[in-house]
Amino acid sequence: MKAEILATGDEIRSGALVDSNSAFIAERLEESGVEVVRHNSVGDDLQILASTLCEISDRVDMVVVTGGLGPTIDDRSAEAAAKAAGVERVFNEEALENVESFFRKFNRPMTPSNRKQALLPEGCKILYNPVGTAPGFSLNIGRCLFFFLPGVPYEMKCMLSGHVVPAMNALQGDAIMHSRVKTISTFGLTESLVGEKVAGVEAVFSGIQLGLRANFPQIQVKLYGREKEATLLDEKLARAGKWAVDRLGQNVISENGETMEAVVGKLLSKRAATIALAESCTGGLMANWLTNVAGSSDYFTFSGVTYSNQAKMDVLGVRPQTLDRYGAVHEKTAREMAEGVRRVAGATFGLSTSGIAGPGGGTDNKPVGTVCIGFSGPEGSYGKQHYFTFGKRLMNKQIFSMAALDMLRKELLKAGG
Amino acid sequence: MKAEILATGDEIRSGALVDSNSAFIAERLEESGVEVVRHNSVGDDLQILASTLCEISDRVDMVVVTGGLGPTIDDRSAEAAAKAAGVERVFNEEALENVESFFRKFNRPMTPSNRKQALLPEGCKILYNPVGTAPGFSLNIGRCLFFFLPGVPYEMKCMLSGHVVPAMNALQGDAIMHSRVKTISTFGLTESLVGEKVAGVEAVFSGIQLGLRANFPQIQVKLYGREKEATLLDEKLARAGKWAVDRLGQNVISENGETMEAVVGKLLSKRAATIALAESCTGGLMANWLTNVAGSSDYFTFSGVTYSNQAKMDVLGVRPQTLDRYGAVHEKTAREMAEGVRRVAGATFGLSTSGIAGPGGGTDNKPVGTVCIGFSGPEGSYGKQHYFTFGKRLMNKQIFSMAALDMLRKELLKAGG
Repeated sequence: MKAEILATGDEIRSGALVDSNSAFIAERLEESGVEVVRHNSVGDDLQILASTLCEISDRVDMVVVTGGLGPTIDDRSAEAAAKAAGVERVFNEEALENVESFFRKFNRPMTPSNRKQALLPEGCKILYNPVGTAPGFSLNIGRCLFFFLPGVPYEMKCMLSGHVVPAMNALQGDAIMHSRVKTISTFGLTESLVGEKVAGVEAVFSGIQLGLRANFPQIQVKLYGREKEATLLDEKLARAGKWAVDRLGQNVISENGETMEAVVGKLLSKRAATIALAESCTGGLMANWLTNVAGSSDYFTFSGVTYSNQAKMDVLGVRPQTLDRYGAVHEKTAREMAEGVRRVAGATFGLSTSGIAGPGGGTDNKPVGTVCIGFSGPEGSYGKQHYFTFGKRLMNKQIFSMAALDMLRKELLKAGG
Repeated sequence: MKAEILATGDEIRSGALVDSNSAFIAERLEESGVEVVRHNSVGDDLQILASTLCEISDRVDMVVVTGGLGPTIDDRSAEAAAKAAGVERVFNEEALENVESFFRKFNRPMTPSNRKQALLPEGCKILYNPVGTAPGFSLNIGRCLFFFLPGVPYEMKCMLSGHVVPAMNALQGDAIMHSRVKTISTFGLTESLVGEKVAGVEAVFSGIQLGLRANFPQIQVKLYGREKEATLLDEKLARAGKWAVDRLGQNVISENGETMEAVVGKLLSKRAATIALAESCTGGLMANWLTNVAGSSDYFTFSGVTYSNQAKMDVLGVRPQTLDRYGAVHEKTAREMAEGVRRVAGATFGLSTSGIAGPGGGTDNKPVGTVCIGFSGPEGSYGKQHYFTFGKRLMNKQIFSMAALDMLRKELLKAGG
């Protein structure tokens, strides 16, 4: 079964917005055994939209279209679909009920323009949207089955897994080729080093394809497999995964795509430990990551984002002499920050960062990209200096935070986490 | 002049890699007065590549193609281009010199496979690559001019500005159409309400096109214009922008795409004020946003991410009676948090959040999505409760943070920011 993807909207066409939906959809379709042949994006022009739908319908068996289902005048997907299929648009009661129920649920008034969202091509099938106002729909244009989904990534993802993937599985029946991806997340090695370590996996495990993906500041190893027999495929991927993990050692964060913060959270939970943070250059990013995990209040107690030296002394109890003698960016200061926040918050562990994210603040001795990470636990404290060469402020905040959480992860593993 | 963009490569087609090149190219082309009509991506299949090139050559005047110029077997752009143009591939001495000079410069040995990078369609024009091994080339297929660039973003960007944009300007000469986008960022209104308020701008200002973009939790109004006369265009866009801003009132955060944190930062700098944060449910996200702005250490002093009640008392001095009587999620608690952090950090303003981001922790009285925001300044303090209906933890953290920063922004404007 062959598929294409069509992303619509002037903001994508003009480059104001990077289309990340199409990559997400392609991955899910390929996992469901559908072969994605091509992605397309066009703007909100009705003629171009309609002619693109016709053109694609001649090439493949199914298409996922995103965007253009909203209430405003430049949302034209339903109109273009009707035009391409040669049918009228009619008010769809089921779709109207979807829109209305959304407003009822949240006790908000429905505007007249929202009614337009229920004006859909005659004969289409409604795809219920549980998380937004825009119902989707599916429709045949020629021999080709089109799924129209909202462009908002969260809504699109819900509806892709709720409607499109089940429909694909049903359509393919016994002919389905199972497809799986195993994702191994690593930190601390460059992409080429990771590549060298796992080169050869395709030769050892026939039918397995290797891909590397930079997901800054992590490098992900992707192992792709496709087989008729699901159990065989799972076994082979598990063996190939173990082979790769053995070669990557302690640089492996997770084998299932889990984030660093989720992995660290599980290690802390397992030993009923708590963590407190003292963040200078990372500016709250570590706390933000840790608290993105539901249930993190079980182990995360406090982060002191101490940008000023005064706050480092007042809140964390860093000694003025330490700051005077060594400065804010130093192993000794980082260590005192970690010790201080552990004490203040009464936590099992303290973790700190102090560094120079840039663009300003660098010196010859301590250029932009320098970070000192402090760790404090029941068995002692230490500080460690790192230097990263990415230059950009936001990249530095990310890699500093990741390096600090990785230090915590390794300490927790050492302690038999 | 009309253009399309074609991104090639199996990692893009299969969704392993998000294509951010096409958005970048589209923006640059539109700025140069070229109208981008469509983006396409296909994999490394030679037949599909060649037929896609032919198909596009019938539709537009020029095309930028990225990827497939490397030394490996799955780099097929040159072969496909030759096939589509109906010419042979020949060894191009100029291209070979480009490849060799790169290896000489870095004192690295050239591999035999790199020679393949100089095997290019007969009659093409070489585009020198100053930063990588892969030379690009331009070639007519039918009446359409194709630019083939490497897929590595840094190399592509160098060659786009070094070769493609100058060629576009020369080709258009006096016929060049200038193109501009004005972005108005809003917060606090739904997309349909924003749409209703600015509906009509296209009628009042002929030639201006309206677009709305949900950039959660903000809604952006985009005004697109295209004219022969750059000064006229700028004036018209400015008037249309003012018209829209008047209708959107205090919901407008910025008129140039600036982020909330940048706007708040400027308002704080302008009055030489400082801000300290007390974050519970937002978990460091507000601090992370504020510190993403270079130079934020001038006004941002401290954030206490006080997830536990103990930390709220110990670090911020929230009274145990307040927590006992009203709980953590209450206007009075939020107010005491803001007052406390302002005092502890010695800042001009204190801002706090305490709420229920979910998925757990909601009650009938205070469901997931409830947040209390506290503000404290030289003229007094208050707390305010909001309720948002998005349900998802990460969305709640974002909208809670945005609502709090928006409260601060309005206070700073009131004070004559």
